Amino acid sequence: MSGDGYYAVIFSSQRTAEDNGYEDMAARMVEIAAAQPGFLGIESARDPGGAGITVSYWRSLDDITRWRDHSNHRDARRRGKQYWYDSFSVRIAQVIDERSWPPAPNESGSVQEMR
Amino acid sequence: MSGDGYYAVIFSSQRTAEDNGYEDMAARMVEIAAAQPGFLGIESARDPGGAGITVSYWRSLDDITRWRDHSNHRDARRRGKQYWYDSFSVRIAQVIDERSWPPAPNESGSVQEMR
Repeated sequence: MSGDGYYAVIFSSQRTAEDNGYEDMAARMVEIAAAQPGFLGIESARDPGGAGITVSYWRSLDDITRWRDHSNHRDARRRGKQYWYDSFSVRIAQVIDERSWPPAPNESGSVQEMR
Repeated sequence: MSGDGYYAVIFSSQRTAEDNGYEDMAARMVEIAAAQPGFLGIESARDPGGAGITVSYWRSLDDITRWRDHSNHRDARRRGKQYWYDSFSVRIAQVIDERSWPPAPNESGSVQEMR
């Protein structure tokens, strides 16, 4: 996969204290995203204090746009602003280099490993 | 800052259970990185289970290379493989779009806000 060029959506957020169905929504969004064309993988981490980063990886910008416009995703974003997030930022970036440690047995690193 | 083009280093890792000076090293690396030319900001989150993501932002690829080759950073990476990480991956990506919510008062979103 290295060198082909693929894209990352870096979502960093600060959660509110309330749940209001957040965990269910988050699990469901990962499930739906993973079924979209061009989805390559997702990684996520959140501090106990509520600061979180999720990075999803996609084959193309068109795949990212299609997922952005998905009705379930739109609905989740609307509720996100209403209930779940104090603030967030979204960055779209083109991956130009990657490596992993320990190295994968057959190549220098692949997003597939993370799925 | 939007549209100028800048770069993200996406570091995702799985920590070992042992500390061995990890917290001190991590705080010191952020401090040293923030003093390097071209540093724009850094965000970090880690699950209680040890999965973490840190994204640092840089003006240019040269700035990223210079930081990669910094002797303190090299030393921290060596100890990272020895003590602190079960595994990690590093991706370098060019940021092509960003937005934040709530919108910043004077522009649509800026990495400076996060510092």
